[in-house]
Amino acid sequence: MSTTRSILERILGSLGAGGIVRSRAERRADRLAGVLRTLISERGEASGAALARRAVALYRGLDTAGRAHFFRLLASEFSPDRELVLAAAEAYHRDPSPANLATLQRVAEPPRQEIFRRMNMAPGGTAMLLELRRELLDEVRRDAALAAVDHDLTHLLNSWFNRGFLELRRIDWHTPAAILEKLIAYEAVHEIHGFPDLKRRLERDRRCFAFFHPALPEEPLIFVEVAFVNELPADVAPILAMESAIGDAKRARCAVFYSITSCQPGLRGVSFGNFLIKQVAEDLHKELPNLKLFATLSPVPGLRGWAREALRALPGAGDDGLGKELVAVVNDPAAIAPEALRETLEGLMAWYLTRTWSGQHAADPVARFHLGNGARLERINWQADMGPKARAQSFGMMVNYVYDLEQVEQNHEEYVNRRRVVASGAIERQAKSVEELFAPPRAI
Amino acid sequence: MSTTRSILERILGSLGAGGIVRSRAERRADRLAGVLRTLISERGEASGAALARRAVALYRGLDTAGRAHFFRLLASEFSPDRELVLAAAEAYHRDPSPANLATLQRVAEPPRQEIFRRMNMAPGGTAMLLELRRELLDEVRRDAALAAVDHDLTHLLNSWFNRGFLELRRIDWHTPAAILEKLIAYEAVHEIHGFPDLKRRLERDRRCFAFFHPALPEEPLIFVEVAFVNELPADVAPILAMESAIGDAKRARCAVFYSITSCQPGLRGVSFGNFLIKQVAEDLHKELPNLKLFATLSPVPGLRGWAREALRALPGAGDDGLGKELVAVVNDPAAIAPEALRETLEGLMAWYLTRTWSGQHAADPVARFHLGNGARLERINWQADMGPKARAQSFGMMVNYVYDLEQVEQNHEEYVNRRRVVASGAIERQAKSVEELFAPPRAI
Amino acid sequence: MSTTRSILERILGSLGAGGIVRSRAERRADRLAGVLRTLISERGEASGAALARRAVALYRGLDTAGRAHFFRLLASEFSPDRELVLAAAEAYHRDPSPANLATLQRVAEPPRQEIFRRMNMAPGGTAMLLELRRELLDEVRRDAALAAVDHDLTHLLNSWFNRGFLELRRIDWHTPAAILEKLIAYEAVHEIHGFPDLKRRLERDRRCFAFFHPALPEEPLIFVEVAFVNELPADVAPILAMESAIGDAKRARCAVFYSITSCQPGLRGVSFGNFLIKQVAEDLHKELPNLKLFATLSPVPGLRGWAREALRALPGAGDDGLGKELVAVVNDPAAIAPEALRETLEGLMAWYLTRTWSGQHAADPVARFHLGNGARLERINWQADMGPKARAQSFGMMVNYVYDLEQVEQNHEEYVNRRRVVASGAIERQAKSVEELFAPPRAI
Amino acid sequence: MSTTRSILERILGSLGAGGIVRSRAERRADRLAGVLRTLISERGEASGAALARRAVALYRGLDTAGRAHFFRLLASEFSPDRELVLAAAEAYHRDPSPANLATLQRVAEPPRQEIFRRMNMAPGGTAMLLELRRELLDEVRRDAALAAVDHDLTHLLNSWFNRGFLELRRIDWHTPAAILEKLIAYEAVHEIHGFPDLKRRLERDRRCFAFFHPALPEEPLIFVEVAFVNELPADVAPILAMESAIGDAKRARCAVFYSITSCQPGLRGVSFGNFLIKQVAEDLHKELPNLKLFATLSPVPGLRGWAREALRALPGAGDDGLGKELVAVVNDPAAIAPEALRETLEGLMAWYLTRTWSGQHAADPVARFHLGNGARLERINWQADMGPKARAQSFGMMVNYVYDLEQVEQNHEEYVNRRRVVASGAIERQAKSVEELFAPPRAI
Repeated sequence: MSTTRSILERILGSLGAGGIVRSRAERRADRLAGVLRTLISERGEASGAALARRAVALYRGLDTAGRAHFFRLLASEFSPDRELVLAAAEAYHRDPSPANLATLQRVAEPPRQEIFRRMNMAPGGTAMLLELRRELLDEVRRDAALAAVDHDLTHLLNSWFNRGFLELRRIDWHTPAAILEKLIAYEAVHEIHGFPDLKRRLERDRRCFAFFHPALPEEPLIFVEVAFVNELPADVAPILAMESAIGDAKRARCAVFYSITSCQPGLRGVSFGNFLIKQVAEDLHKELPNLKLFATLSPVPGLRGWAREALRALPGAGDDGLGKELVAVVNDPAAIAPEALRETLEGLMAWYLTRTWSGQHAADPVARFHLGNGARLERINWQADMGPKARAQSFGMMVNYVYDLEQVEQNHEEYVNRRRVVASGAIERQAKSVEELFAPPRAI
Repeated sequence: MSTTRSILERILGSLGAGGIVRSRAERRADRLAGVLRTLISERGEASGAALARRAVALYRGLDTAGRAHFFRLLASEFSPDRELVLAAAEAYHRDPSPANLATLQRVAEPPRQEIFRRMNMAPGGTAMLLELRRELLDEVRRDAALAAVDHDLTHLLNSWFNRGFLELRRIDWHTPAAILEKLIAYEAVHEIHGFPDLKRRLERDRRCFAFFHPALPEEPLIFVEVAFVNELPADVAPILAMESAIGDAKRARCAVFYSITSCQPGLRGVSFGNFLIKQVAEDLHKELPNLKLFATLSPVPGLRGWAREALRALPGAGDDGLGKELVAVVNDPAAIAPEALRETLEGLMAWYLTRTWSGQHAADPVARFHLGNGARLERINWQADMGPKARAQSFGMMVNYVYDLEQVEQNHEEYVNRRRVVASGAIERQAKSVEELFAPPRAI
Repeated sequence: MSTTRSILERILGSLGAGGIVRSRAERRADRLAGVLRTLISERGEASGAALARRAVALYRGLDTAGRAHFFRLLASEFSPDRELVLAAAEAYHRDPSPANLATLQRVAEPPRQEIFRRMNMAPGGTAMLLELRRELLDEVRRDAALAAVDHDLTHLLNSWFNRGFLELRRIDWHTPAAILEKLIAYEAVHEIHGFPDLKRRLERDRRCFAFFHPALPEEPLIFVEVAFVNELPADVAPILAMESAIGDAKRARCAVFYSITSCQPGLRGVSFGNFLIKQVAEDLHKELPNLKLFATLSPVPGLRGWAREALRALPGAGDDGLGKELVAVVNDPAAIAPEALRETLEGLMAWYLTRTWSGQHAADPVARFHLGNGARLERINWQADMGPKARAQSFGMMVNYVYDLEQVEQNHEEYVNRRRVVASGAIERQAKSVEELFAPPRAI
Repeated sequence: MSTTRSILERILGSLGAGGIVRSRAERRADRLAGVLRTLISERGEASGAALARRAVALYRGLDTAGRAHFFRLLASEFSPDRELVLAAAEAYHRDPSPANLATLQRVAEPPRQEIFRRMNMAPGGTAMLLELRRELLDEVRRDAALAAVDHDLTHLLNSWFNRGFLELRRIDWHTPAAILEKLIAYEAVHEIHGFPDLKRRLERDRRCFAFFHPALPEEPLIFVEVAFVNELPADVAPILAMESAIGDAKRARCAVFYSITSCQPGLRGVSFGNFLIKQVAEDLHKELPNLKLFATLSPVPGLRGWAREALRALPGAGDDGLGKELVAVVNDPAAIAPEALRETLEGLMAWYLTRTWSGQHAADPVARFHLGNGARLERINWQADMGPKARAQSFGMMVNYVYDLEQVEQNHEEYVNRRRVVASGAIERQAKSVEELFAPPRAI
């Protein structure tokens, strides 16, 4: 470092680790890091609550640049010490005593976990940490080193948002508007067009349930919308129609889970959906013994993408007339699939859902969720949702997954241990009908 | 081990650690461990809630022997793998990448932590885990290897009972009887003699606050009892008197924290007291600006024990008349200390509280708590509690600690970093008055 | 009036209606009456709330003498005007038009009703009016003219405490202590010996329900205690035993209403008991379909008094040995009735409950209540309550009334229209067995 | 009537009052009346609750014709007996004893009052009675004889909806949607355009309060909307603007009551507005001591109608240019009043509000309400609301009434006893400026 520069630095006084002149955002982030250092020191104990409040306020005051800088500080400064870790591991290897294990756990846990625990102590701390994680996830895409920070926060959130701490609440028209407003904003499957639309979805032939965490009493974490109908539905339009007649819950045979939405980007990877669906199915089963069938009406978001690739790989695809039309439809997200292609497209859908895997999981993300939960793939529904999104994803088709609570464990095992999708006979037949496309007759 | 026996064992196959034939208790504990193995496997996912319920039910069905056996299984079977830990530590040492860190954390975390998290998912899981820890603590005294299990559970409980998740509730006569009953049962400082006694402690010149956790809505975790009085109290009797006149909270100058009780043995070592006292002081300060002084009237449980040892070590103690009486009083827990000894005993108390340390902490456990919170040692009160317990512990003396919220941080630092007890001038003088006993004039 | 006296009066200025010099109590009562005059005038409208608060405060400040004076003012000053009433009645007689009817109602309603309605507008007004009525009832015994005031207040209270405004709440161990304490204080049938005794009565094999009025949220109006047992109980001791084993509500056959207590003396004559018992029976029937029998175990408070008079009137009673013993027992409230008298005493009880009337009502007050509700007299229980009170009232006997919801209307009609008590065959036979005592064989 | 027909009638037995053969609606109404006769008889006691439920269900089942018939039955059959009334009045006139008074009250009260009290006992009874009154008010316009029924119901509702039984609740965005929806539907002053508009009115620089009755927990009875602003507002547009910046409640000087709406047509004539405004002003005054001014921004619905008549009666009105324009504007509800007419129109407004009476009350209905509550007429605001309704009513002008809680009683007295409107000096001057129009110079 040249003398001039050194003098300059001394004059400027407060320089960041990584560069010569720190920006205002960096200085603020550094100040926060300073508070956090105190917070996790012995000194911070007597005024832990006050320091935590200060830290939360400082974080809230940071702009995007300041937060990005702060994340980097968390990654670089508050990781486990390599030497201590190695020494502790060696000691534990020699003698796996409780004391050596305790030391190992202490030094292997990144100090930023304690930082997060301390920040959580402030009023609004939990909400702030979810916000932080949401922003962190954005930032991780730009800087892979931040994955370590995310790993720690995810670990904590998984522990804190343990099912045992969640509260299942029914949402209806008596729910505070502040919560209903969030459902409207968050709904990810079938858009809710304002309060009157939501009101129809909360009538007495419907149910809506959400998980809440006590530290976020007005923030739904995940919610599911249920319609009571007489039979397994093949079409989503009647369910979404605002003007439809209100049915009688006590006479319905089937509960359809037609929308399930995770609300908190800050909780990505912390999964509650499995618990929510099964708890709701159990509770409804008790409340309304008339319900005999618990099923979904679900999108198949990955179908078109997979079909495009599959057709491309097929020798001779598109050669004959039907083949040509098929290729055209598969390549045009706006196309309306003609009835003539129905059998083929349903066959492709059946094949896709039952035979294509991405590692240990079904290729389709929605299938992955329901099959992983132990649901059974029941039926393919032609022209079930003719909105542009469903047409683009799956040629307007949807599927039903059935939750048979007595079978879910076994289905799940088939899926996990034998990599087999439990599906109805009809779907099996539909898949078989396109078999020759993918499994050409072996040579003799 | 004889050959026959060895063969027998091989034949029997699944034998408990401690003996040839497993007892019924052991078999039940083994069954629980089996469920838990499934629970933390991939297989357990689809029916996690059901398995967790089964595990909780199985644990509840175990008797003491079964539980002890189960604790041992947790210690022996669900610890981190030594080889994996060492390999991960070496990898992290070579390259502290997020991936290597993630692997390290995964293999260094004992699988029993996941077990506890899964059991917590069942209804009543949190309460069961507190019960488990209570029993585990008993068992650790018999078997030090269980300390590793306790370490894991404590780690989780510390995270789950984070201040940010606790709810501060005022307890008064409108509180459900089921909760009040628990206060009566738990109170550890000044026994509550039934509901009428408690009622007096909840009148409008009193306050009682407790922390609750949302998963245990009727279980106070810790509670503090406060009396509003006009000046720093020197005597606990008027505060405890059931028949006393009810004062005017809006005119009181002083809030006395006269009892603070931790309720859950299963949460030993998870400390909330610091937060509770400060939060209550802050809230009362806002509600009642007339309150100028926040102080305790506290026992000194360790005084007599220390004094006995100290006198024994003093050359010539007990030689003169006063000295003889002192030695007699110090050695008789039932003795009533005569006025003649007041100055000496107060001096010993002052010395004990300000000058004796056990490692980094004040020797007296109550002093340790309040001084660690940043309170100031204010005054020694002669004949402040003439009940047998206080007479036996501290010759009937009690002390006041003062919480000056603007000073707690600084006091705490003095205490932690300089090992100095912040005390009033009067107490300093009282300590000095016995100095020559402990610090004999140096030789010239 | 002499000049001197007139002058004196002018000097004194404010003299009461009834005497020369008014006492301090009277002056305060007069001041209250003054406020009330303003309150019901047009002037009082703009500041009705403030005036009502002032009136309530003034009433609360009155001592017993002041209140008695105030009641007299209410009786003398705020009654309907005789001339206006007569004129309105004549007009209505000539022409029963809506206008004439409205005028009649306006002038026939005593202005003190409006006074009570206005006082009720103040915070705490309803509670104050109940207190006022309680005291008024005492005073009415001394001054029959106050009956008119009581009549008005009762009329209002009957309207305000309409069943439609009452809330049925279950009382259990989660109920605030402030309410439980009142149950202990009010219980009128089987004394509750403190909180632990009450706790047993609220266990899961018991129920307790109370009516509340929204304006008195912590004041039970009436409550009933229910025990679930396997058969119609013959003995109250097992029900009251604090140490008894806790039964299983889901297996019980019989719900016993073993205690029902009206809590508010200020609501005497405003009856809810009928509604309470039937509502509770209906609700329990729905919750626990295993319950087949809804019955009471009731005292017979009037038996001894009636028996004493009845025996006195009988020629030759007490002549033979048994007769002598009977007379002795009947005349000694502390006596323990010997087994030898059982048949006779049970016969007398049956006769008393089924054959003796006081005007349109059964002579016994408890019988009057249950029979009026449409219950059936089911069984006489010998040595059912050996406490001194029950021995003194009914020789230790109790009876069961059965509430068969499908029969109550018909039973009630029998009772009201045909003056017939619906009783079991056994009781009919017991009554007949003593018939010759009361209905000597007619001459041939 | 022919003999045959007469015989037929005798055979048919129970014919309606109005015709030979009763319609189905009449038969149903008669059945209801039959249930009600039982309900108020002695017989009805044991099954009062069941009968009340039946009565409510029957009423709900009646169509419009049936209800009209039922109202007529209530009017004709359940009135006081003329002979009994006269006899009781004469007895009371001779001897105004409590007994005679009680008899008088009993016979003078129409039995339909007891009918209404009994119907109220059923679940939903209170709501049904409000519905009944709403329909009754419609019917009274057709049949004046029903006024007697309305008089009785009004009397009861006035007693039941006594201020002492009402609950003041703050309405905000945390209020259940089912209640907010009703505010949107009921708002009568400044229309609420859906939930987003309402949300702005519930932000933290606003308040909304409503009275509720415990028997109608989700039905607001009356609500007031308040905005916090810095000075007395002259224009309603900034208050209603959905996009306006949210102010700081802790710095506002003025609370504006800009909308007050009675929600229940069934409670017409049962007034709570006075209580609501004063209670809210008192409460806000305590919560926010920065508020120095409590005022309204109110419409003047009667101005144009009065001005039209007034100008018509003036000799020579409309002669000169300005006069012509004035007459034109006054006669065209859609006209936009030109600035040139401002002084004159403000003068007319001032005159109208301070000098025109309808009997004992101010002519304008809104003025009547606020002046009757003791408010002061403060300021006329030119072009305060340029919406079509306000232009048509009051040429776009609005006025402020000020609630000075220390003055309301005195202002009210001026208004009631001296028929004087308390107004600001400015308004007095504005009124004087048009004096010569209405008070032509007296002859010398």
